[in-house]
Amino acid sequence: MNQELFTINNLWILVATILVFIMHLGFAALEAGMTRAKNTVNILFKNTIIPAIGLITYAFIGFNLMYPGEGFEGGFFGFAGLGLSLPEGWDTAAYDEGYTFFTDFIFQAMFAATAATIVSGAVAERIKLGPFLFFSFIYVGICYPITGSWVWGGGFLDTLSTPFVDFAGSTLVHSVGGWGALIGAYLLGPRIGKYKDGKINAIPGHNLPLATFGVFLLWFGWFGFNGGSVLSADPGEVSSVFVTTAMAAASGAFGALLASYLKFKNYDITMVLNGILAGLVSITAGADLMSVNEACIIGFIGGALVVFSVVFFDKVKIDDPVGAISVHLVCGAWGTLAVGIFGDLAGGAQIVSQLIGIVAIGAFCLLFSFIVFFILKKTSGIRVDELEEVEGLDINEHGMHAYPDFATKE
Amino acid sequence: MNQELFTINNLWILVATILVFIMHLGFAALEAGMTRAKNTVNILFKNTIIPAIGLITYAFIGFNLMYPGEGFEGGFFGFAGLGLSLPEGWDTAAYDEGYTFFTDFIFQAMFAATAATIVSGAVAERIKLGPFLFFSFIYVGICYPITGSWVWGGGFLDTLSTPFVDFAGSTLVHSVGGWGALIGAYLLGPRIGKYKDGKINAIPGHNLPLATFGVFLLWFGWFGFNGGSVLSADPGEVSSVFVTTAMAAASGAFGALLASYLKFKNYDITMVLNGILAGLVSITAGADLMSVNEACIIGFIGGALVVFSVVFFDKVKIDDPVGAISVHLVCGAWGTLAVGIFGDLAGGAQIVSQLIGIVAIGAFCLLFSFIVFFILKKTSGIRVDELEEVEGLDINEHGMHAYPDFATKE
Amino acid sequence: MNQELFTINNLWILVATILVFIMHLGFAALEAGMTRAKNTVNILFKNTIIPAIGLITYAFIGFNLMYPGEGFEGGFFGFAGLGLSLPEGWDTAAYDEGYTFFTDFIFQAMFAATAATIVSGAVAERIKLGPFLFFSFIYVGICYPITGSWVWGGGFLDTLSTPFVDFAGSTLVHSVGGWGALIGAYLLGPRIGKYKDGKINAIPGHNLPLATFGVFLLWFGWFGFNGGSVLSADPGEVSSVFVTTAMAAASGAFGALLASYLKFKNYDITMVLNGILAGLVSITAGADLMSVNEACIIGFIGGALVVFSVVFFDKVKIDDPVGAISVHLVCGAWGTLAVGIFGDLAGGAQIVSQLIGIVAIGAFCLLFSFIVFFILKKTSGIRVDELEEVEGLDINEHGMHAYPDFATKE
Repeated sequence: MNQELFTINNLWILVATILVFIMHLGFAALEAGMTRAKNTVNILFKNTIIPAIGLITYAFIGFNLMYPGEGFEGGFFGFAGLGLSLPEGWDTAAYDEGYTFFTDFIFQAMFAATAATIVSGAVAERIKLGPFLFFSFIYVGICYPITGSWVWGGGFLDTLSTPFVDFAGSTLVHSVGGWGALIGAYLLGPRIGKYKDGKINAIPGHNLPLATFGVFLLWFGWFGFNGGSVLSADPGEVSSVFVTTAMAAASGAFGALLASYLKFKNYDITMVLNGILAGLVSITAGADLMSVNEACIIGFIGGALVVFSVVFFDKVKIDDPVGAISVHLVCGAWGTLAVGIFGDLAGGAQIVSQLIGIVAIGAFCLLFSFIVFFILKKTSGIRVDELEEVEGLDINEHGMHAYPDFATKE
Repeated sequence: MNQELFTINNLWILVATILVFIMHLGFAALEAGMTRAKNTVNILFKNTIIPAIGLITYAFIGFNLMYPGEGFEGGFFGFAGLGLSLPEGWDTAAYDEGYTFFTDFIFQAMFAATAATIVSGAVAERIKLGPFLFFSFIYVGICYPITGSWVWGGGFLDTLSTPFVDFAGSTLVHSVGGWGALIGAYLLGPRIGKYKDGKINAIPGHNLPLATFGVFLLWFGWFGFNGGSVLSADPGEVSSVFVTTAMAAASGAFGALLASYLKFKNYDITMVLNGILAGLVSITAGADLMSVNEACIIGFIGGALVVFSVVFFDKVKIDDPVGAISVHLVCGAWGTLAVGIFGDLAGGAQIVSQLIGIVAIGAFCLLFSFIVFFILKKTSGIRVDELEEVEGLDINEHGMHAYPDFATKE
Repeated sequence: MNQELFTINNLWILVATILVFIMHLGFAALEAGMTRAKNTVNILFKNTIIPAIGLITYAFIGFNLMYPGEGFEGGFFGFAGLGLSLPEGWDTAAYDEGYTFFTDFIFQAMFAATAATIVSGAVAERIKLGPFLFFSFIYVGICYPITGSWVWGGGFLDTLSTPFVDFAGSTLVHSVGGWGALIGAYLLGPRIGKYKDGKINAIPGHNLPLATFGVFLLWFGWFGFNGGSVLSADPGEVSSVFVTTAMAAASGAFGALLASYLKFKNYDITMVLNGILAGLVSITAGADLMSVNEACIIGFIGGALVVFSVVFFDKVKIDDPVGAISVHLVCGAWGTLAVGIFGDLAGGAQIVSQLIGIVAIGAFCLLFSFIVFFILKKTSGIRVDELEEVEGLDINEHGMHAYPDFATKE
């Protein structure tokens, strides 16, 4: 590769890095907007500290767990050592065939924190801050890079006879976060008052402009998340990924709009917002493989799925304030499967491989997060006490209000 | 063109695409912030679904209406068929001399929805959701691409003996939206209480930080809107467009500040915000042609113009909650004319061509939107009933509040 | 340099320009969020008009003051004339060895306004609008470019036997703003009620999601602020700067979290937010020189420092509503010194040069802003009257409320 193309490719991955970075603000806004004003500082605090956790742990542990390097091929676990060491020629076209070592690291590091951010939404409004931060540290620092190494690091899922395919992380990023979210929400139990006398009481988000902001920023950043995952600025590939990503998001909005209108007979903005995210998560595994029509179908199904999934989790009384499990776990799995169905790869064998990957990674994440949350539950405890939950986590864990000048309704 | 330049050009248009995308969030924030809290969900809903409408309609109809292809030259109407079909060599330097087919499509698709977004602001707080969505679908899917084809698609305005010039869409995008906005606001009539007993009652926006956010995001995105319209990463042209765009925006702020201070003797943030947008709309038609000084003059005049225009439309009782008609229609026309005045093109002949374009496109859009809105008015109705308007569209059309935790004033 | 690399470099600086632009929204959001609802319009107004001031003054005066051109080498003051004049070959690879004249100008122009934005935060909630705008005009138009010329323009600090080093402006941008902030806050005196009966009364910010938004946007933009200061798209250098910038921000968050937890025993989101900014300001002077570990140390110390600094300024009763002096002046100085300590440059001689630069620029800015603010104080006055301050600047200076639909607490 010549210096010019090396420079262009490198530049695009760096720009994509910035775009993925701002997704953390998107998550912060979405989660804060979809929950109550009394817990806003708590959510902002978590979502501000999470990217910092992600960057630090990924530099010192994660990157070398995820990319153990030579000899790892086909493996389950490998570790290339603590901290980053710059390989010879790291900043030349020779390194990694397209971008520098530091570009490689920082793009991946921005992805890493996403796993914990997803969990954050599902456990909002009732989890203790300390245990959540502890969970985030080791989920991002250990669990995420290990399952990541199985595919992107060249591990056993990448060396199946029909390799498991996950372009930008429907499973490796979104479902990984989604499994942690599921376990967290399950072990915590629902928020006080959510399920009472056999009825489901909606607890509306306190700031829908903020939630809308969040979703737009996530869509904005997703062009970097998927587009940067091309790992070059190849004109055909990147533009194709942009188109599939945008069309899936748009179709997801319509899928959710239709499903929620048929089900609830109203125009529910929160469903449309989650539908957009559902479309985006769904296309992520195969954004480089799909035609325009396929992207529309995959996104539309994802958007509809999220509505039914939200209803389902409420029925089984798993309380997920922002719908994170439905968006990231359910649609992450759907998108990963869709690669086998639509991706024009190895047919039935591909579907089997996709299922193997979903199950293997799901099992590991389930176990990992169950053990961590369970130990935390039995030691420090994971749930704030009742009074604190009723009064709000902001005043109790942080000693401040998010909006001290405004009168509240209660 | 070699592969390196092809890749750079393509990358820049894709980055510009992302920037134009985020303008939809800018519009959502601006329009929500400039209206009342009780209608916020409604506005967010419209502005969230509009880019989805834009992407879907543009893929299936709009793109091929706007660029009918060979044989259309000089025409009024052409259609290259439903859906996108990838031309041979679409992802090579040979295609379109500078970027891929998909890049071409997605950049244009992000522009498309803007027309409906502009309308959305002017008809806010009183239009029925269903009819508005219907209007958006066909305005974005049919009207916008047809008038677009007259210039950018090589139609009759592009083949005048002195061709009509509109670099990035002062007329083709902003005025098109503005005409729809004018007709919509006119046919709906003013909001209850706006004009009473011969007096104009200002109805203040409920969230000025949100409105400010919106304008900054629009300015941010405009670097892509205008900068991407260079259709290459040519260093001289793109940097020149960046400078004229930024200087016009800054000068628009001062134009509006001065005009509003002289007129009202106060420092009105909403006028300054609209002044920035006015400067941006005004420079859009000739951003590639102007010097720094010319950009300042054009932007300053645009900024002052918007103040007088807002006053004028209130005088004739056309109620435009966010000033969309003044910003996009009036300044769109001004910017288009300014190309003839300052653009160092064909002198008087150019001014005549600019007027022909403004009038031709205006007439078509007026007629188109009048017919659509009129039919909707006579069938489904376009205005919510009085009680619904007073209580707010959020609770009546969407069954939810944007800020359920906060106490409101009334 | 060939056309391809010229185009890539130029493109990256332009993208960086957009990123620096959006930092102005970041400042607006941070400052509005950290102050009271009754002064929000005033803050938004100032932060909206400041980038406009920056662009206009920089085009007509500042750029030519900062880069006086040939013959200035080693100088204190030079001026290349009013307005921008395009040099021969401004848009070719020959100009400036890497980007066009307009790219050079617009990237620098976006930096310029930052100095006034920083002041804006420290003097918030009590300064008169007119005098503040006057100060901004001449601080941005005259003071900032003169001190800038001493280093980036090739002036005397750049020609010391051991040249003063400030990569992207810890001193040249942030401390310059910080000195103006210090003088402004000192001459204005504290807000009513801040220090009463020997006690420090915290005046909490009214909208912490807004403040969080601001900090994330600043971090986002900082990738352009530092990354663009490489002045090329060189893969090794830009990616290295991205990594040090991100790691310092993350470490700053932890430094502030630890310091504030040890000091106050709570999880203070505002400290974490300022810690991120502290890390960013601290790394700015040496972002191109540091290893990952050094970036972490520098950022961590910056984050801790900001906590102690905020406490210190409260002790000496200098009331800085958003912590601007601590973040930009104190950490700006720390980051500049850190270049001498960690930068592997000229050892002790480098530390001496860094101190010379800090003191020389500090003395000039102190004097400049003292004279300007003092004259304003003795003529127009700089502080609003007591009633206006209590009622809020929004209603008194602007005649409007930021959130008219919501009930407030008082």
